[in-house]
Amino acid sequence: MAELRYARELADHEDDFDRWYTEVVQKAELADDAPVRGCKVIRPYGYGLWERIVARLDARIKATGVENAYFPLFIPRQMLEREAEHVAGFAPEVAWVTRGGDAELEEPWAVRPTSEAVICPSYARWVQSYRDLPILINQWSNVVRWEERPRAFLRTLEFLWQEGHTCHATGAEADARARQMLEVYRAFLEEDLAIPVVPGIKTESEKFAGALRTHTVEAMMGGRFWALQAGTSHDLGDHFGRVFGIRFLDRDGERKFAYNTSWGLSHRVVGATVMVHGDAGGLKLPPAVAPVQAVVIPIWRTPEELATVEAAVARVSERLAPVARLRVDWREDRTPGFKFTEWELKGVPLRVEVGPRDVAAERVTLVRRDSRQKAAVPLDTLAATVEALLAEIQADLFTAAKRMLADHRVEVDDYAALADRVAANAGWSLAHWCGDAACEARVKAETKATIRCIPRDLPPEPGRCIVCGGMSEQRVIFARAY
Amino acid sequence: MAELRYARELADHEDDFDRWYTEVVQKAELADDAPVRGCKVIRPYGYGLWERIVARLDARIKATGVENAYFPLFIPRQMLEREAEHVAGFAPEVAWVTRGGDAELEEPWAVRPTSEAVICPSYARWVQSYRDLPILINQWSNVVRWEERPRAFLRTLEFLWQEGHTCHATGAEADARARQMLEVYRAFLEEDLAIPVVPGIKTESEKFAGALRTHTVEAMMGGRFWALQAGTSHDLGDHFGRVFGIRFLDRDGERKFAYNTSWGLSHRVVGATVMVHGDAGGLKLPPAVAPVQAVVIPIWRTPEELATVEAAVARVSERLAPVARLRVDWREDRTPGFKFTEWELKGVPLRVEVGPRDVAAERVTLVRRDSRQKAAVPLDTLAATVEALLAEIQADLFTAAKRMLADHRVEVDDYAALADRVAANAGWSLAHWCGDAACEARVKAETKATIRCIPRDLPPEPGRCIVCGGMSEQRVIFARAY
Repeated sequence: MAELRYARELADHEDDFDRWYTEVVQKAELADDAPVRGCKVIRPYGYGLWERIVARLDARIKATGVENAYFPLFIPRQMLEREAEHVAGFAPEVAWVTRGGDAELEEPWAVRPTSEAVICPSYARWVQSYRDLPILINQWSNVVRWEERPRAFLRTLEFLWQEGHTCHATGAEADARARQMLEVYRAFLEEDLAIPVVPGIKTESEKFAGALRTHTVEAMMGGRFWALQAGTSHDLGDHFGRVFGIRFLDRDGERKFAYNTSWGLSHRVVGATVMVHGDAGGLKLPPAVAPVQAVVIPIWRTPEELATVEAAVARVSERLAPVARLRVDWREDRTPGFKFTEWELKGVPLRVEVGPRDVAAERVTLVRRDSRQKAAVPLDTLAATVEALLAEIQADLFTAAKRMLADHRVEVDDYAALADRVAANAGWSLAHWCGDAACEARVKAETKATIRCIPRDLPPEPGRCIVCGGMSEQRVIFARAY
Repeated sequence: MAELRYARELADHEDDFDRWYTEVVQKAELADDAPVRGCKVIRPYGYGLWERIVARLDARIKATGVENAYFPLFIPRQMLEREAEHVAGFAPEVAWVTRGGDAELEEPWAVRPTSEAVICPSYARWVQSYRDLPILINQWSNVVRWEERPRAFLRTLEFLWQEGHTCHATGAEADARARQMLEVYRAFLEEDLAIPVVPGIKTESEKFAGALRTHTVEAMMGGRFWALQAGTSHDLGDHFGRVFGIRFLDRDGERKFAYNTSWGLSHRVVGATVMVHGDAGGLKLPPAVAPVQAVVIPIWRTPEELATVEAAVARVSERLAPVARLRVDWREDRTPGFKFTEWELKGVPLRVEVGPRDVAAERVTLVRRDSRQKAAVPLDTLAATVEALLAEIQADLFTAAKRMLADHRVEVDDYAALADRVAANAGWSLAHWCGDAACEARVKAETKATIRCIPRDLPPEPGRCIVCGGMSEQRVIFARAY
């Protein structure tokens, strides 16, 4: 019964989704508890997933003309305090360095919670003329926001992310760049992680501290159908340009303040990948980012069988290496059934079984992780079949996730119904809202649901605010969120 | 005279090497001053170089079976203090977080100066049986060591590096791994950065705090022929295994402590690349890691010339894109001469000039950065020529650096002569040393030269210590170091 060991040990995916998440992250060896409060260790399998996420997203970001750079980890307090809204938003969650090399610092240094305040002074140095614009820079870095109750990938004191920071001659150009990067996130999430998202704009109370406008892509997680903010892109207007003195001589001979954007996506998307696609058996990783796309399980009993299976596995590996990231599991202290269950738990998209009967018939047995469909495939067509199946699995995961989103997003016109839906974890509610922060706050206080975004792609539709009955021009998404 | 502008502005490469370094790093836009004391900003061109260094070294590290992971930035004080020698070595240069989220911490947290003390507790969790060994993990991260007088890449309060941490069942295996990773560094430095190195062992007073033995690769910089420690690999014995309780049940049924190694290489190697290959004209980047391997400079005067040159540049780009990382410099507010000088300063290995006369003759003009050799090359053979030249430049840079090393490394048997060589910046001195820390300390106090390493590949040779006349079995390298 080794086959069932791991699955039996996972908490129920439907009834106890939070525990299921914690356990699958731990047992699939994505992350582990750290000996530092609020932090987690990202283990090689989880980091391998992150490396592929980084490679894919980095290529998409660079394709828009952005280059990578690196700015300091620390931000002296006065620098962080220059933009008033920005510091008000972040100061409560900052870690402060007050001693260095055995001396007390005259001024404490913040460990960056985000880097606008340490990057803008460099931009002020670099920008003199309109010819120096735009500046298009991204950095991959670690940031710290004080957090006592960590959840691996979703909420940790330190986390890994990319933060892009651009600088432009006009507000229109900054606005266009903020939208462009949201579109990069949307395409990355949908095409590489197979996670459908709803693009939109944050309300004033939910926007980035210091921004003019925050664009967001919101994704629906499995289990309780809560929302997760998967990436945000901020049009900062000239707020930072003015306080940090980023000025340039324009074509028309006038000195002007520059406009900025910033946009970030973090390793929360690892958590999102777990929560969107996972099931009772564990992870289901999208082939595009899976560290192992196909795992070969040799099956044998006798030394004679081992010899023939070894030769067959060598042939199989040679054919598959060009089309899939491959792992062969030769462990001798584990049964094939144990290995099946373990690699299913780890979400490897395809399993390739090579046993004596397969060898005799010049074929292998392929098993899909997502559908558990099984097929005998001749060696001759194996590479082409695996390549096609990986593409099919990627597409099917996306289709399944889109169905989940469609099935759990409902138009609601009655406040009691909205509250009931939130309490029952029934999914997202599309409801009218008048734009008043008081109505938004009341829903949050009474139901714990927040406005995730004002959807970008929803047509305008006049209606009445679900809270106060005031005029509304568009429905917004109310949902609980991670 | 735009051609000379940049070169004229650089300090003299021979007479004022320190200023030359500072200026070339600044003007080539590798790095810039940061608004945070002790730190630098790594600009896109410098970070592009680092990205290629990371990609190359990461592949070499993974080829030895190592996987990447990520451990927390912070180390609670008591954890850092567990290994006594380790904390004694690092505590004086630690940055301490004492406040988080507006509350004082009960125990200060160190910002990692290196991660042994935060990784070993996880290893103690993960290792139960000999089957769990070895653990082979690397992480790419930022670390902090308090530093008030920064030099870009060479010495900054925060720096980027990789740190590998392995765990083994036996001391012999740890010893072998430490040597293997030193060999990875040697091959990477020599083959990818074209920097010849001398592998060896650090003396007791120069070894890593907490290590049994530190292996090092030492490189000779240009200008003053000082040494730079380019990478170190530590055999930690069971020092960390014992204090952190990394124990396992061995095959023989006994519970044993595990053995560790750690090994690191930092973005100092960017500085080394600048200092080893650079000349009066600026950088010379090895093609293997150059962000731009060939820069195309279109040359035109009239709109008619521009039209033909544009068409030719399109054809040239199409042919070169598969064999070289390419940039086309279309700026209209800069003369070709200015561009030549600027890209030379930035160390781009090959310049491709495309002017009207070139177009008429169905050719381009190729100019090597290292030798400044110029050749007219027909379009037909351009791709093959560029590919061959990039390999040749890589090899020639390595040959030139080896010659510099050979020319400035001399056997010395007289202490006064050693002191004179150090004072005159004449290069490295190979001298006998008895093994006594007092003799080593005297040389350092009197000349500022340190023992860079006991070379691995130098045959034993009996002799007399250059300081005290005591018995010596081998010559060691005395040199000033960055």
